[in-house]
Formats: sequence, structure tokens, C-alpha cells
Amino acid sequence: MNFPAAPRAAEFSPPATAPLAAIDMGSNSFRLEIAHLPRGQYKRLEYLKETVRLGAGLDSEGMLTEAAMQRGLDCLRRFASRLEGFPAARVRAVATQTLREARNRNAFLARAREALGYPIEVISGREEARLIFAGVARLQPSNLPRLVIDIGGRSTEMILGRGRKPLTAESFQVGSVSLSLRFFPDGQFTPEAFRAAQVAAGAELEEAFALFKPTMWQEALGSSGTVGAVAQILAASGQTDGRITPEALRWCIERALEAGSMDRLDLPGLKEDRRAVVGGGLCILYTLLTQFGIPELRPAKGALRQGVIFDLVERLETERAGEGATVLDMREASVAALQKRFSVDLPQAARVQDLALRLHKQLAPRASRALQRELAWAAALHEIGMMVSHHDHHRHSAYLLSHVDAAGFSQDQLRRLADLALGQRGGLRKLEAQMSDESLLWQLLSLRLAVIACHARGVTEPKALSLRRDGRQITLSLPKALPNTQPRALYLLQEEAQAWARSGVLELLLA
Amino acid sequence: MNFPAAPRAAEFSPPATAPLAAIDMGSNSFRLEIAHLPRGQYKRLEYLKETVRLGAGLDSEGMLTEAAMQRGLDCLRRFASRLEGFPAARVRAVATQTLREARNRNAFLARAREALGYPIEVISGREEARLIFAGVARLQPSNLPRLVIDIGGRSTEMILGRGRKPLTAESFQVGSVSLSLRFFPDGQFTPEAFRAAQVAAGAELEEAFALFKPTMWQEALGSSGTVGAVAQILAASGQTDGRITPEALRWCIERALEAGSMDRLDLPGLKEDRRAVVGGGLCILYTLLTQFGIPELRPAKGALRQGVIFDLVERLETERAGEGATVLDMREASVAALQKRFSVDLPQAARVQDLALRLHKQLAPRASRALQRELAWAAALHEIGMMVSHHDHHRHSAYLLSHVDAAGFSQDQLRRLADLALGQRGGLRKLEAQMSDESLLWQLLSLRLAVIACHARGVTEPKALSLRRDGRQITLSLPKALPNTQPRALYLLQEEAQAWARSGVLELLLA
Repeated sequence: MNFPAAPRAAEFSPPATAPLAAIDMGSNSFRLEIAHLPRGQYKRLEYLKETVRLGAGLDSEGMLTEAAMQRGLDCLRRFASRLEGFPAARVRAVATQTLREARNRNAFLARAREALGYPIEVISGREEARLIFAGVARLQPSNLPRLVIDIGGRSTEMILGRGRKPLTAESFQVGSVSLSLRFFPDGQFTPEAFRAAQVAAGAELEEAFALFKPTMWQEALGSSGTVGAVAQILAASGQTDGRITPEALRWCIERALEAGSMDRLDLPGLKEDRRAVVGGGLCILYTLLTQFGIPELRPAKGALRQGVIFDLVERLETERAGEGATVLDMREASVAALQKRFSVDLPQAARVQDLALRLHKQLAPRASRALQRELAWAAALHEIGMMVSHHDHHRHSAYLLSHVDAAGFSQDQLRRLADLALGQRGGLRKLEAQMSDESLLWQLLSLRLAVIACHARGVTEPKALSLRRDGRQITLSLPKALPNTQPRALYLLQEEAQAWARSGVLELLLA
Repeated sequence: MNFPAAPRAAEFSPPATAPLAAIDMGSNSFRLEIAHLPRGQYKRLEYLKETVRLGAGLDSEGMLTEAAMQRGLDCLRRFASRLEGFPAARVRAVATQTLREARNRNAFLARAREALGYPIEVISGREEARLIFAGVARLQPSNLPRLVIDIGGRSTEMILGRGRKPLTAESFQVGSVSLSLRFFPDGQFTPEAFRAAQVAAGAELEEAFALFKPTMWQEALGSSGTVGAVAQILAASGQTDGRITPEALRWCIERALEAGSMDRLDLPGLKEDRRAVVGGGLCILYTLLTQFGIPELRPAKGALRQGVIFDLVERLETERAGEGATVLDMREASVAALQKRFSVDLPQAARVQDLALRLHKQLAPRASRALQRELAWAAALHEIGMMVSHHDHHRHSAYLLSHVDAAGFSQDQLRRLADLALGQRGGLRKLEAQMSDESLLWQLLSLRLAVIACHARGVTEPKALSLRRDGRQITLSLPKALPNTQPRALYLLQEEAQAWARSGVLELLLA
């Protein structure tokens, strides 16, 4: 993925000193970090980590076991008690590969949200990579082009970047938990198992070689638990000062083979909670260093959770700054990049966006700025499906929005934009389930009316429609001349009123 | 849709004089045209037309009624008896809007194919538009930029083009049958019904205004039954010499209002089989002429069925010419245009294509050139989903191929490419139903092995794999050194052998 030009983050000066919280629901550990930024300096206030090993709880059908879910929920409840009193706007919880994969994730997420008391976002692999880079770039700044690697429990993220700008980010489905479960299921360390695990890791990472060539970067940093744990072993045993080198990894693997099993492995600095996954972690590290020709990998300061906090700060700033402010939120840049990638008709998107926002203010005057921005993004992107086909383009837009990688967005947020794109026209039955959410309802109605009013694609100026809402009854005042001047607009609005009447959700009266 | 640069059709000199047949299964009429092209001159040998009115047989649930299906099947059986002895390669049957829409089309198509005895392709609206233009451009050549309009039973196609080159083509879901059913259901001609039908037609066609501005073309031609029927009325009644003008249409509509119902309508030149749909047809024509500022629309020579025959000739030529020949087949240009539109990694696509074709020759040495070309297209496009996301890109490729507008391809052909893209990697269960088709099986295996061998994306050259097939047992000979030189390729091939073993469809042995 190539990132859109980064928003002007460099001009940003951090906000008030109130604390912020990030929860990283990883495949191996769950982490809670609370921090604040007095005078722009990152200060950790608290850090909790529990080895939940959620990623080991996926059964052969890709379902999270009840035991694994319970471990996760218990941990989240402990985090929740620490978070008591935190305003929702200052907390962000993200979940990664295990919950990207788990087929019963929705059931777990519903329980998890209740246990935590805050929303939880499942983020894409590339979004995870971007946030990791944001954490490292802020806590360990440099102007050198650098490769950042994060070996997680079920995925490995790689990011090439410079300064605060991520240039290429990718996520690969191989991690310390999943590789250990697959190749060291009984805890035996044999040369065959190590060799097979390295081959499997290499096969999964092979596509990375073209993306992250050694000539592209000048230093390599490792984030995450696996890198930290191995660095600690190497330092404690006097092999290196904490740098990870191919020779030092070979030394580690030889010790593991001598021990013969993970139970008997006795290395200085090896923590108990790493024992079960160190085999897989070593294989991924060794494969990466030898295949990429990385002479040394240094443990990085900064990780996903700090990236989440920096991102949260930028979002809060953007919300606070209001319309027309300097854009800090990565999502704004992503929306513009998607419009370009899918050749969106920009004047039409702007017309629909403008009118939809005006109508939304009439329908839901107290809606949050976040809801307004969501509507603005949906309007900006509602026609991306046109690149696939004019016919049923709203369905193609919804498909693309559900599946596209878009920096800054969680999967839930993209699904919401997809719902709005799907509902931009046609029958309403397809969104029946979602319309119990009243905030979606007003966004949807605003977007649909704007699409109708802008139907002529700039051939005629959309008339400013005037709406009055009384509970679930909406009255749309039409200019008296409309039947003569714009008979088609009238016709489409009549069809719209019928569609809502059939839905039973609200009443749209034309007056 | 903007078309790819047209293949070098102008250099083309038509082939042998053996007859060709086109079947147009329209929403109002089914047509059979048999023609040949001695010295490049189009000569009609036979023309059959039946007013099946399939499009009037869609019920409120979008299902074709049994009665409508029977009318269609009876007609196809009559066509079949006329086609007896025709080689399949010289017959092409296409179905349009009604079968694009009908929810039970697959059931009908299975019976229809049996009745006709030849394959039937459901084509997209834009493909229909392109073929109509091909027919008109050949039978009524001109170098003026022109607008061609075809008002069908359930859709209206519009094409802007010059010479033989279509520049913009679009299909709109409004037609003479569907509009008549909706606004004149009881056959009554009232001013209100005419006005409402015109507004509805205009709303559906509104998006066309930006695409086909009057400044873009210098003459307007109408193809299809509605245009022919109205032209005939105007000529027979002395209103014009057959040209359709806004004034003459107003005269027609006034006669219809005077009559008060379609039964009582008595116009010179009005054929009985047009009576039921002339109301809707007049409304669409009047809306088009007044809204687009078309001073006169002349009936065109050439229509969909002739376009199908010219397309068929070009395909036969391309097949016969073999590899490396001058490209005539529009599909080749479409594939290249899609690669560009979706930013395909061209060297990788070429590597996979090359190897897949070599493997396919070993697996299915007697496969037709058509099957080989299909595999080549699938290989060229198997990664278009990468534009959506790296993750699950094979699924995105399949979605895009199922839904994209691609000139020259029928919907079934695109679905076949989508199946191959979906099956390029991962489990085989998802294609279980399709693998009863043995020709797909060999394409699929060739593509999968090529994707594995080219996994490193050019970092290493794919070794030429050697295959031997004995029924459903395939032996893949590997170089002895492979475990050492390419351990990952070996690993992936072992996984592949396991996937096929699980499928139970064939056995892949690594030797």
C-alpha cells in the first residue's frame, strides 16, 4: 500500500494534558497504556499487560474457544476498572489479527465491548502497521529511511518509512503464536521442526522481499514482544548488547535444539510468558534477517499502543478544530486518496456532500461532529463503485468500502461507510437491521435526498431543500413551481416518500 | 464507459463465405439472422422474428412466468430447426435486459440452451450497446461523430461513436415493454399517463445528458423495433419521409390521446405486434428528442444481431490466426484495458500467464484454442483485486471480474474468469460445484501451479515444471536439487498436493 501524502502532522502541537488510554488486544497479549502529552512530550502514566494468548484459542474451524474468550473478557474487565471515569473520546481500543480471523468475532466483540465499557475497533493489517510506525516514529525519531518490523502473535507487520511518514506498509499472516502452534505443537524442538517452520515463514513473507528491499532503508527496528524478548535474552546472556543479529539468533536456536523442548529451555532473560511462543518467534526473526540481509535489528521504542494514542490525539485535535481547520486526521487524506484511486467524479461528490451535510443539520441539529464527518466521507466515496460498473454501482461502492485498505479507518468504520453507500438509492429493506441505529437513519436520509437532488450531475443546480422533523415525521417543503420546473425531481422525491412509507421506519411528507 | 483503443479492425478482410447465425433474445422480440460475407459484403440469407414479449413475463418478484418461458422456448425450438447442421462456432446467441434481470434466469437458460441446441450468452448493457454500434457502423458507415440509440423492450442503449469506434456506451433500464406495462397497464391513453411516463423515462435517462451532449455528435440514428415502427407510421401517414422529429412525435401522441386507448388506436403503418408497446416507445422517443435537442432521428441500418455477426467473424479470424496474430478480438483489448484500469503488476501477470499456458499444454494437450485464451485472460487479470486490498485479493479479483463491464465478454465468460481468479489459491472447496467441468479443472490446476512457481514475483525465475497426466493422476517432476535450492517452492507444492488430495477431484504426486 502506498500512503496518501501525510496530513500536516509536523505543524501539530499536542493538546491539553488530560490522560489518554489505548488498549491493544493482540493475539498474544492484551495491553493497556495510559499516557499524557504535557508540552508535546509523551509521558506514560500506566501500563498493564496480560498474556491472554487469544490467538492460541482459535480452533480448527477458525472459531474462538469459550476458554479463550473468557481469558480475554476477564482481562478487559480488569482494564475497565482501571479506566473508570475516562471519557469515551479519550479511549481507543483496537483488536488485530486474531479478531480479523475469528469467525465468531462478532459474538465475542459484543461481550468484549460490554466488559470493557468502550467501543472496540478491529483494524486491518495495514492500519495496524501504520499505527505501529506512528508509535515508533514519535518515540524514536530519525530522518533515516527505516524498516520497522513487528512480529505479533498471528501476524507480522512491516513498514518502510522516513521521519513520520510511512511509505509502504504490509501485514503478513504469520506470527509467533500461530507458527509455534503449528510446528512445535508438543513443545519439541527438533531440527526438522525448525527447518519446516522457517520455510513456512519464508513462504508467507516472500512477497515482502520486493516491497522492502535492503537498498530502500538504512536501519531496521523491531517493535513488539517477540523482538523485546529475544533482545533481552541476547543481552542477559552476553551475546550482544541487545541487538539482534543472524549469528546471535543461530546461537539461540542451537540452545533450543540442545534443550530439545520448550520446557527444558533455560536461557538467561527468558520470561515464562514467552516460553510457549519463543520457537515460532525465533524462526520468523531468523528468516527475516537472513532473507532480507538485515545485519542487525534493534529493539524500537514505541509500538502499536503508542501509535494509537498519537492517532487519538490528532483526531481529538481535528474534531476540536472544526470545519476548515488544518487537517490532521489521517482519514481525511485517505478519503482523498481513495477518490483518486477510483477516479471519482469530484464535482459531483462535492455537490452531494455539501447538500447532504446541509440536510443532516436540519434533521439532526445536535449530531456530533464525528457523525457529520462520517456522512461527509460517505458522500465523498459513494460513487467509487462506478469504476467497476455503472450498473448497480451502489453495491460495488459498498463492496469496495467494506474491503478496501484505508489508512486511519477501522473495519467497523469502513463497514458503516459501506452501509451508507449501499443505501444511497433503491429499496430500504437491505438496511433494515442497521436502521435501529437512529444516527444512521438521519445520515442515510440526508445522503439519499442529496443524491436525488444532484441526480442531474450539475446540469441543474440542486435547489436547497428545506426539511422539518417532528419525531419520525419529516416534512420536505418543495417550491410551488417544482412540478413545472423540475418534474423529474418531484417524481423521484415521490418515489422516495413511498420507499420510506414501505420501510415503516419514518414518514416523509412532501408539502 | 470509455472503450479501449479498438483493435485493428480496419485492416481486417472477412473470411470464407460460410454462413453465420446470430440469435437476439430481446425483451420484446426474438430474432434469428443468418448471413454471410462474400468479399466482405454483408449478405442476409435469412431473417426470422417472433414477438415473444419475454419482458412482459416478469412478475412483481422479478421471476419469469412459466407462460413467458414457454413462448420463448417454443420460439427457440423453431429457430433450432432452421439452424440444423450449423457448426457451433458459427452461431452466437445473446440475451439482454430481461434475462439480465430475471431472478430465475438460470433455470430458464438451462432449458433455453437445450431447446436451441447452442450456447446462450447473457450480455451486459454496455456490451449490448457496443454490438449495436458495431452493426450500425458496418451497415451504415460514416465518418461523422454520431449518436446511436436503441430502444429495447426493457432497456435503452445509447452509443456515441465515430467510424467503427464506439467512444461512450451506456445502457439505461427503461424500455418500451416495461414503460407500457407500468403506465398504460389497462391500455388507456390519458394525458396524465403520458405525462407520468415521460417524467419516469426522463428520470431514468437523466444521467445520459452529461454523457451524450448534443455538441458531441453530428447525426442521430435509431436502431431497433420501436424506432422502425414509429418511422413506418410517420412515413405511411405522410408526416415525414420516415425521419422522427419532435413535431411528428407530438402528432402521434395526439392521435393516441384522441383514440383514448391502444385498442382503438388506428394509425397507418402500425403493426399489430407493436400496438401493446407503442405508448411506452413514443414516450421514450419524445423524451429523448426533446431533452437531447435532437432535431431528427433517422432509422439506422444495422442492429444488435448484425453486430453479433460481425463480432463473431472477428473472433473466428482471431482463433484461426493463432498466437501472435494481429488482434481483432475486442476481448484482447478489454483485458489490456482492465489491467491498466486496476494497475496490474504486468511483469508478474506475464510470468504467470506464460507458465500457466505451458503447464496447460502438458495437462490438456488437445484443449481448444478458446480454452487456452480463457486461461491466458484469467492469468492476465488474476491480481486485479490487489487494487482493493492485498489481503484476500483473489476474492476481490473474483468480485471485480463478476461485475466489471468489459467490452466483448458475456456475463458467463466473466463469471468463468472470476471462478479461475477465486481458485488461484487457497482451499478448493469454494469451487466444488464448478469442478465437474473438466476443462475448468485443467485451467485451474495450471493457474495455481503457475502462481506458486511465480510466488517470488521475479526474485527467482520460475523453473519450468514438468507434468505428466494419467487420467486424474498428475505427476509433477521436481528437480532433485529443489529441497535445497527452493525449499519454499517445495513447501508450497506439498501444500498444493494436500489441497487436491482433500478435494478428492484429482491426485497430484510430487516425484
